[in-house]
Amino acid sequence: MRYREMSIEGRNAVLEAFRSKKSMDKLFIQDGCKDGPILSITREAKKQGTVIQFVSKGRLDQLSETGKHQGVVAYAAAYEYAQVEDLLKAAEEKKEPPFLILLDGIEDPHNLGAIIRTANLAGAHGVVIPKHRAAGLTATVARTSAGALNYTPVAKVSNLASTIENLKKQGLWFVCADMQGESMYRLPLTGPIGLVIGNEGSGVGRLVRETCDMAAAIPMRGDIDSLNASVAAGVLAYEIVRQRLFAG
Amino acid sequence: MRYREMSIEGRNAVLEAFRSKKSMDKLFIQDGCKDGPILSITREAKKQGTVIQFVSKGRLDQLSETGKHQGVVAYAAAYEYAQVEDLLKAAEEKKEPPFLILLDGIEDPHNLGAIIRTANLAGAHGVVIPKHRAAGLTATVARTSAGALNYTPVAKVSNLASTIENLKKQGLWFVCADMQGESMYRLPLTGPIGLVIGNEGSGVGRLVRETCDMAAAIPMRGDIDSLNASVAAGVLAYEIVRQRLFAG
Repeated sequence: MRYREMSIEGRNAVLEAFRSKKSMDKLFIQDGCKDGPILSITREAKKQGTVIQFVSKGRLDQLSETGKHQGVVAYAAAYEYAQVEDLLKAAEEKKEPPFLILLDGIEDPHNLGAIIRTANLAGAHGVVIPKHRAAGLTATVARTSAGALNYTPVAKVSNLASTIENLKKQGLWFVCADMQGESMYRLPLTGPIGLVIGNEGSGVGRLVRETCDMAAAIPMRGDIDSLNASVAAGVLAYEIVRQRLFAG
Repeated sequence: MRYREMSIEGRNAVLEAFRSKKSMDKLFIQDGCKDGPILSITREAKKQGTVIQFVSKGRLDQLSETGKHQGVVAYAAAYEYAQVEDLLKAAEEKKEPPFLILLDGIEDPHNLGAIIRTANLAGAHGVVIPKHRAAGLTATVARTSAGALNYTPVAKVSNLASTIENLKKQGLWFVCADMQGESMYRLPLTGPIGLVIGNEGSGVGRLVRETCDMAAAIPMRGDIDSLNASVAAGVLAYEIVRQRLFAG
């Protein structure tokens, strides 16, 4: 389990962080900002006893990692990485078959944030990312996850292929996104499942792909090669949602 | 029809632009770059008789709008906006019921690019955007569309609601993305259709929403409010693809 100081930026992300009861160290608000969303944030911060500091726009711009603070930056005690076991436990507590999303080297923090957001809304129990050659949980990821990072656990592993091997022993089936695969509509995606999404440029790596049980293709009717990685993750995750909804 | 000088950046986008036979004015390549993708681009440029200029990384950084040129920037004669009629004509030529994606105020160029990319692969005949308060076809959009902008026409209209009214008279049905709507699985989405996606923060505007025939909700099983706009567009567009595939 790893802890680190984390800045959260933008009104939605900060408000969601407070509402999720995450422990917040400090809140910076731009001088003169007192509209509805800012007042809601202030109210939540007071409830928690968080230190509030009013600062100039210039100071806030300095504090901001993303440049898109919308007048508010907060410091959370940590975004803590979960263990893979925590993700399975979350499924067990909800009495649902596990549904994990594994990312084989997503590099763009916007894609990572959007995928965590999708994982939350599609009812996935967590996201697994590799330690190396991949985006981690930065402020940009927190912001683009629109608060989902407070609810959906993210585990970081050294070796994605061996994590998959271990999870297969625990009954999960793995399907990877692969343009050469079977149409996603024809695959059985209702049981305990791990959905593997590849890198933006090179897709799912050979070793990881060979470790998966199934390869799922999204039907492509156009001229170019591939969907944006976070869009592909959304389309595949929602095919799993659909099959689960209509599976008896 | 509006023309303007357009810079295209990044290897995939530039190569796709050449391959699509778009008329290219000039190609800038970073000194010393001569790997496979760059050689393919050079070959295509020579075929077309495009002026090629080798420049320093510093010069290329200056030319770059996105800061992500990957060693190559090209200038196309134009990305030209289409007319709404062109989009219908494209459907007619393919003997398919029209499928358009209309964006009610998407502001983030990454979202616009990703949606044009999705439109292309989902087999939509074009994208309609409003003139005001929305992202236009910038270099960032071209880059994130991964070349789709060369194939999928984009029309720009003054008033989205009246465009919808006109298209309804021509037999199209309109469905807007709306969390309060009917589950997308229960709506009939197989005929001539326009899918309306709203602004990142505020969703589809009231007037446009009231003009639509149906409101479609993506099932939400999580804790936060909404999907990223380009992911939501992808999930809804692919529900249309699915229904069309399985509609006998």
